Amino acid sequence: MEHFSDRLAEAVIAKRSVVCVGIDPDLARMPPELVRAHRERASAEGDERAVAACFEEFSRGVIAAVADVAVAIKPQAAFFEQYGAPGWAALRAVVDCAHEHDLAVILDVKRGDIAATGAAYARAIFGGAAGFAGAAPGLGADAATVSPYLGDDSLTPFTDRCTDGKGVFVLTRTSNPGAALLQERESNGRALYLHVADLVARLGATHVGAHGYSDVGAVAGATAPEALRAVRAVLPNAWLLVPGYGVQGAGPAALAGISAGDAEGYVVNASRSIIFAWQQNGEEYRVAAARAAGEMRDELRGAS
Amino acid sequence: MEHFSDRLAEAVIAKRSVVCVGIDPDLARMPPELVRAHRERASAEGDERAVAACFEEFSRGVIAAVADVAVAIKPQAAFFEQYGAPGWAALRAVVDCAHEHDLAVILDVKRGDIAATGAAYARAIFGGAAGFAGAAPGLGADAATVSPYLGDDSLTPFTDRCTDGKGVFVLTRTSNPGAALLQERESNGRALYLHVADLVARLGATHVGAHGYSDVGAVAGATAPEALRAVRAVLPNAWLLVPGYGVQGAGPAALAGISAGDAEGYVVNASRSIIFAWQQNGEEYRVAAARAAGEMRDELRGAS
Repeated sequence: MEHFSDRLAEAVIAKRSVVCVGIDPDLARMPPELVRAHRERASAEGDERAVAACFEEFSRGVIAAVADVAVAIKPQAAFFEQYGAPGWAALRAVVDCAHEHDLAVILDVKRGDIAATGAAYARAIFGGAAGFAGAAPGLGADAATVSPYLGDDSLTPFTDRCTDGKGVFVLTRTSNPGAALLQERESNGRALYLHVADLVARLGATHVGAHGYSDVGAVAGATAPEALRAVRAVLPNAWLLVPGYGVQGAGPAALAGISAGDAEGYVVNASRSIIFAWQQNGEEYRVAAARAAGEMRDELRGAS
Repeated sequence: MEHFSDRLAEAVIAKRSVVCVGIDPDLARMPPELVRAHRERASAEGDERAVAACFEEFSRGVIAAVADVAVAIKPQAAFFEQYGAPGWAALRAVVDCAHEHDLAVILDVKRGDIAATGAAYARAIFGGAAGFAGAAPGLGADAATVSPYLGDDSLTPFTDRCTDGKGVFVLTRTSNPGAALLQERESNGRALYLHVADLVARLGATHVGAHGYSDVGAVAGATAPEALRAVRAVLPNAWLLVPGYGVQGAGPAALAGISAGDAEGYVVNASRSIIFAWQQNGEEYRVAAARAAGEMRDELRGAS
């Protein structure tokens, strides 16, 4: 089975891009033409189904528009889960659509649970649950974000799936204002997030691809560039998933010093600044998303 | 809006029980009569739908069987999510079934995310997402488990819903073997989980019901009784959700000293030892679950 880390490396090299596009659909920010097309369906098919169909069409449009420029997409499960079973079905369709465009899917789910429950979450995300007739497909994602608070036995159910070609990104130093509250607490002279980085290093050591990167990566935000570099120092060969770019405030300078290996070793996520770019200038939403993603790619070339 | 904490207190007082039954369905452990009834449907309706229907029937049976004895049920979302959209629909049906039996539903989802995403998870769990025609119902749970690693801004999207009568249980000191790795790290002379307990106290201070309990509670495992008592010391009026009883190894002695207020102030969860009790002695699964739940209730009376 090909390593997730190698597939991502090859995409970064081929596209000369580290852009990951976050898919965070919000009904209040859907383009008017999609709202018109789907609102009608609400009375006949039910509101959840109509919104889910609207999100699916929007996401498909964005994915096709950014496919040449992005190396991965990162759907935020929460926005789909709001609309129940139809929302979940739309999320699966979004994963399939990204695969049709040969894009890696990093599912942003921030799950974390132990033993049988952790393994069940991994099967929900990656597939493989036992059915009556065969294995269930799950969401079919390539990688997922996971939360480390429960400890190593909450991460291994996910990292065990690296042997199936899957990737894992462990929350390490996140990009939000409240991140410091626990993550920067000092313990034994080091911030908690660095102890988490140690754990990522340990879990990833046995899952390294041909490009030298580990399939077990870390989420480290661009909004705290010192912490981002400190995570890189602990994890010289891990993929970093870097949120906080664009709307959250960080620019290319925040990435200085984090390049590693033959394919940069990181991807930078932007969500709203790309998918809702149409609201900035009134362009058609796919045209606006393609342009915003292209600008981001160019901005990030040589940033690190 | 009535407080979640008051509804739980009144159930504990009325039933003289602190039993919470975990709903963790596993296809390999379904009673043979249910497997026979649902396996047939797999070819016609699809495997995911057939398994989801089997889980739903099983869960309904268990809920009805334990309704007199339990004060809450705790469905583990992972087991349902494995089976895609039909699994999600079955999870919602399980929540509705518990409400028909007047049982509180603590959804074990261990979510945690910030800002708009955190709020979307809360709407997925509690309802309220904007639709074309009105608000989406979400899963309709009464309370949810949340993970604190991202900090206070990952918890407030959930605790903000306490004003709608919802409850939140923050992972504090969990019951798994790996829990100590991060949660017991010392920082400023105290274990990390006690700093999390401080945060729970702060977030809960403005959400206190007539019984004196906060709607913002903590998950603290029975497998680490010293830590459990330390959490209680920091949180004298919070509901504690105590896992680790039964299959995970802890007995009633682990609960000594944690009673607080007029309704004990804690619920103890057991999952497999109740829902799969039929495998121990060959009884019909509902009969076995009712008996196991009743024994647990009796065992726990006066334990604290």
